[in-house]
Amino acid sequence: MIHRKLLKVLRVPPGSKVDLDDFDPGLDIHPELRAIDKDDLKALASEKLRENVAELAEAQELLYASDTYSLLIVLQAMDAAGKDGTIKHVMSGVNPQACQVFAFKKPSDEELDHNFLWRYMRALPERGRIGIFNRSYYEDVLVVKVHPELLDRQKLPPGKRDKAFWEKRYDDINRFERHLVRNGTVILKFFLNVSKGEQKRRFLERLENPEKHWKFSAADLAERDHWDQYRRAFEDCFTATSTKWAPWHIIPADYKWAARALVSGVISRAIQDLDLRFPELTPERKKALAQARRKLAAE
Amino acid sequence: MIHRKLLKVLRVPPGSKVDLDDFDPGLDIHPELRAIDKDDLKALASEKLRENVAELAEAQELLYASDTYSLLIVLQAMDAAGKDGTIKHVMSGVNPQACQVFAFKKPSDEELDHNFLWRYMRALPERGRIGIFNRSYYEDVLVVKVHPELLDRQKLPPGKRDKAFWEKRYDDINRFERHLVRNGTVILKFFLNVSKGEQKRRFLERLENPEKHWKFSAADLAERDHWDQYRRAFEDCFTATSTKWAPWHIIPADYKWAARALVSGVISRAIQDLDLRFPELTPERKKALAQARRKLAAE
Repeated sequence: MIHRKLLKVLRVPPGSKVDLDDFDPGLDIHPELRAIDKDDLKALASEKLRENVAELAEAQELLYASDTYSLLIVLQAMDAAGKDGTIKHVMSGVNPQACQVFAFKKPSDEELDHNFLWRYMRALPERGRIGIFNRSYYEDVLVVKVHPELLDRQKLPPGKRDKAFWEKRYDDINRFERHLVRNGTVILKFFLNVSKGEQKRRFLERLENPEKHWKFSAADLAERDHWDQYRRAFEDCFTATSTKWAPWHIIPADYKWAARALVSGVISRAIQDLDLRFPELTPERKKALAQARRKLAAE
Repeated sequence: MIHRKLLKVLRVPPGSKVDLDDFDPGLDIHPELRAIDKDDLKALASEKLRENVAELAEAQELLYASDTYSLLIVLQAMDAAGKDGTIKHVMSGVNPQACQVFAFKKPSDEELDHNFLWRYMRALPERGRIGIFNRSYYEDVLVVKVHPELLDRQKLPPGKRDKAFWEKRYDDINRFERHLVRNGTVILKFFLNVSKGEQKRRFLERLENPEKHWKFSAADLAERDHWDQYRRAFEDCFTATSTKWAPWHIIPADYKWAARALVSGVISRAIQDLDLRFPELTPERKKALAQARRKLAAE
């Protein structure tokens, strides 16, 4: 039952002021965990991941059949926090036909010629589907806030780029998400919370393993120099945009197995909470099915 | 080694006139298979599927890392031939981030206001990705040929809808595909060849199992009345569009386990044939990596 309790702890309460110091990137996220040996915890987490993935596969079939809701999963993190691996392991059991992953790169000129939500709006999951945004419109209040010169490329109307400017962006995002939720999209937002030390370890691993060289970019290392600014941008962002309709979850990510078990748990639970059923037959449809059966039998 | 031989037999030789009577939807697709007991064959196929799926997962990582080629998989078939199940089982091991599935429905008004390839062009996989078209632009020479009244909705310039009209569509498709191949897209086209008897059995199963009711549509049954016309449309289509650069594969689909093993085999082999390697490091990049390593170590 500790799993259930953890899922609650991860959620950022709407309206609360977030201090990332309160969120351990390791295993110190709940007092009950202290009593459990790390190896036992790892075994439990692997078992839970397997269970969650199986539940998720079933839940997704219902989501697809009922054709009313869609699920949008937003993943944000510092580099090497494990976004790609999380997607791979958590979504491994889901029918690829019902799951769409979008990794957003540097915006194109065409995209910059629109409002900042435009390119994300176009990639939203259809009803019945799970859409995963590997990075998202939140970059527009994260990397763009840390590197305000990026705003120049966005060709915005003139105006100060002060606190009020960013507050309006948060507000735009909150209203956008509320619109989606009102129309049937369930939104789950995850921050994979990796520590600076663990990021260093993972960078070095990429640098040492020739099969991982291609994954390493000098730009990632440059961003590491802005660690503290990012942290503040994340805190402001979570404070402003963890809403009742689209809450943030801060996932301890120093142990990949822990992160995967927790993310899969939140997602699986969220679909189950929709309490979906396979579509009921209307009397007309029942008649049509009976007719079809007779027609086939008579062939 | 029989698996390799089968993969060859499935491919429609470019320039050959296709008669679907020559393609058994069951297991009679190669003389060597006759000597093997069906249960043994099923066990072999399951084992082969597992192998292929694992190979495919690895091959796809290379495809992604090399960021040069993309893979477009086109699936066409009569209803209940197993397209959805094939996608689910064959792609189950592939990282969802690198795999995009598009199921095309009735075209929208906006889509009909464009050339018939337009909506498919927009959904093509990016470099490094696998794109699956569950139905495709081939519907425009299949369902549209069987129901030529659908052409009226396409708002085409006036002209006869005669043999020459369809030949031009085939030609449009062949040139479109050649353009894609020239630019790095590998195209694999599959026809899941189900028999009329097996389709009946599967329809009845859907009608009898309440959890599958939602999958059954009266329209599917109506299309069954046009079985022979579809068969001719498929034959004409394969004759005209199995090209050297984008060949068709006719997959026996009366046994799902056979179809899945064969489709996964063709796909896995095709990526392996690209003979990809993880990107080599240029001297500049090597230097940059060494620098990064030093910088991290000195922290």
